[in-house]
Amino acid sequence: MPENKKTNKSALHEHEGIEPPKTLSSDSAESIKAKRKKQPSVDDLVNGITSGNITDLSRAITLIESTNQAHTAKAHEIITACLPHANKSTRIGITGVPGVGKSTFIEAFGSYLTSIDKKVAVLAVDPSSTLSKGSILGDKTRMEDLVKDKNAFIRPSPSGDSLGGVARKTRETIILCEAAGFDTIIIETVGVGQSETAVHSMVDFFLLLKLAGAGDELQGIKRGIIEMADAIVINKADGDNLKAAKSAKVEFNRALHLYPEKDSGWSPKVSLCSALKQEGISDIWELIQDYLKTTSSNNYFERNRNNQNKFWLLQTIEERLKSDFYKSEKIKIELKKQIKLVEEGKTTPFAAAEYLLSL
Amino acid sequence: MPENKKTNKSALHEHEGIEPPKTLSSDSAESIKAKRKKQPSVDDLVNGITSGNITDLSRAITLIESTNQAHTAKAHEIITACLPHANKSTRIGITGVPGVGKSTFIEAFGSYLTSIDKKVAVLAVDPSSTLSKGSILGDKTRMEDLVKDKNAFIRPSPSGDSLGGVARKTRETIILCEAAGFDTIIIETVGVGQSETAVHSMVDFFLLLKLAGAGDELQGIKRGIIEMADAIVINKADGDNLKAAKSAKVEFNRALHLYPEKDSGWSPKVSLCSALKQEGISDIWELIQDYLKTTSSNNYFERNRNNQNKFWLLQTIEERLKSDFYKSEKIKIELKKQIKLVEEGKTTPFAAAEYLLSL
Repeated sequence: MPENKKTNKSALHEHEGIEPPKTLSSDSAESIKAKRKKQPSVDDLVNGITSGNITDLSRAITLIESTNQAHTAKAHEIITACLPHANKSTRIGITGVPGVGKSTFIEAFGSYLTSIDKKVAVLAVDPSSTLSKGSILGDKTRMEDLVKDKNAFIRPSPSGDSLGGVARKTRETIILCEAAGFDTIIIETVGVGQSETAVHSMVDFFLLLKLAGAGDELQGIKRGIIEMADAIVINKADGDNLKAAKSAKVEFNRALHLYPEKDSGWSPKVSLCSALKQEGISDIWELIQDYLKTTSSNNYFERNRNNQNKFWLLQTIEERLKSDFYKSEKIKIELKKQIKLVEEGKTTPFAAAEYLLSL
Repeated sequence: MPENKKTNKSALHEHEGIEPPKTLSSDSAESIKAKRKKQPSVDDLVNGITSGNITDLSRAITLIESTNQAHTAKAHEIITACLPHANKSTRIGITGVPGVGKSTFIEAFGSYLTSIDKKVAVLAVDPSSTLSKGSILGDKTRMEDLVKDKNAFIRPSPSGDSLGGVARKTRETIILCEAAGFDTIIIETVGVGQSETAVHSMVDFFLLLKLAGAGDELQGIKRGIIEMADAIVINKADGDNLKAAKSAKVEFNRALHLYPEKDSGWSPKVSLCSALKQEGISDIWELIQDYLKTTSSNNYFERNRNNQNKFWLLQTIEERLKSDFYKSEKIKIELKKQIKLVEEGKTTPFAAAEYLLSL
């Protein structure tokens, strides 16, 4: 990607006038100056993003993902400036266990969407990516066609120590993508830890991708996922698998019937598709359109987005309160001791908590 | 109940020697002194509880439930002294919507248990009790036989501003009941807010009571409850209802099959009963025995209790961190403003959180 294209514009950058410290050799001072020249300003990036420049979008996302405080401060300015241009997309979460064909599905689904003139951004939330280095969407070659599609933008999962951090970065990235004109945001998650819950709370529509034909409908679905799904899509419903997929559909429909009505007023649907053969893909988009119609007319769509915002606001506060408390070395040591005392039946969890809070 | 039986013992009470303030009339000074005489010491109460004295148990629970700091401090001493005698019971959570027949079921189930020489304590978690004044178990006449049974102890839900507070008091009460020799603790909840989750995290076995024959299996089950249940018991499976109950059993078994295996290694069971006709009650106790066998042999039982303790320790800390933060008047005002700004798309939830944390 042409990362240096905007070098000239950065002459306007506010840091430009600052003289390098005198202790540095003139060589390194020059190189710092050169480096600074490459940094576009907040205004540059915002203008770039809102006019659909993908390079600027990528750069701004890199600032969001940075651990450098100056970068994140700059990122926040950009996000705030982009806010009036955001919020105008359909946000779709997609989850499913490894092997279910998520990449193939997203490739087929995304390509269908661009073929009907949609602009599609594909993001991911994978809190395990830091450890495994095997970030989902990290290997863009898994979506060969979509990568080349100029109406699609694919970005691997940000890395991070905590799901909260990863989710926050992705949520901020959604805003930038929307400001850049992407009208359909797909957020993939492999379902590690609580990542589905995090993704569910940042999307309008949540899709669970499933397989049939493995002779076992359980396939390790995590607790609560079926309850979050607005649609269960049974992938690889082709060839020898078709019969099993059809009977899985019956079974899931029966199971969904046991759940109470959702706040959205929407009854989750079960759908079959073959991403590989590109069958059943347009049906899923129609299904999502039905969902949008239902939830727009009963105002759930807007209410849900407001609730999600409030959730993230409170969640961010509460995560920080916790991390500030637990990061103290003293608390770390005393917490271990108190847990041991509780296990030995020498104190109660409540007395232990009081003690730790009094430190 | 003979609440005054232990008056003489309290002559040993440590407060005994304190003179009443001189500004009080000698009459009220006398009455205060008389009142003080009735206050048994921590040691008295602990001795009473561990020898199975119900009056002392009730008094100690009243101290737990008190909002007076001196009372709760005394309660903590009692709980700590009781800890070595606790932890030796089967803790059973029971939930179900109003009308499902929880009281009748607990009456039948509890009476069956005392008939096989069990000592049964029935507690409740109902965070709505403060508001509605209609505390579950508040009206003991709902369990006429069990109330008169000397091997049963029934205590209404403590009241409180928050579920956390109510749950904490109930959890501490469990310890005292166990120390008093109750080997089976039943905790009822009507399922308001997150109360099932709270009860689920303080019991060994979680039972969902259901009805069939209403022509609709949904009956407003809350999300996630089926996933928490170790058994679904379909009540009122008698007379004209029997056929519907049987088909509901088939349907629930099918639904449960769709869930992944539990950490406990236990597959949830569906059972029929008629609490009114006292049918199917002993089967449920056998089912719980099977559960205990399974979870003892794979060590889940102990692991789960340890995890529950850790959960409550961390939960208590985190609730306090939050309530300390949100109770500030300044934060209350600014939080409202920030939520409005987020709703208007003028700031992000994350920037709003940073701002509030910086105050």
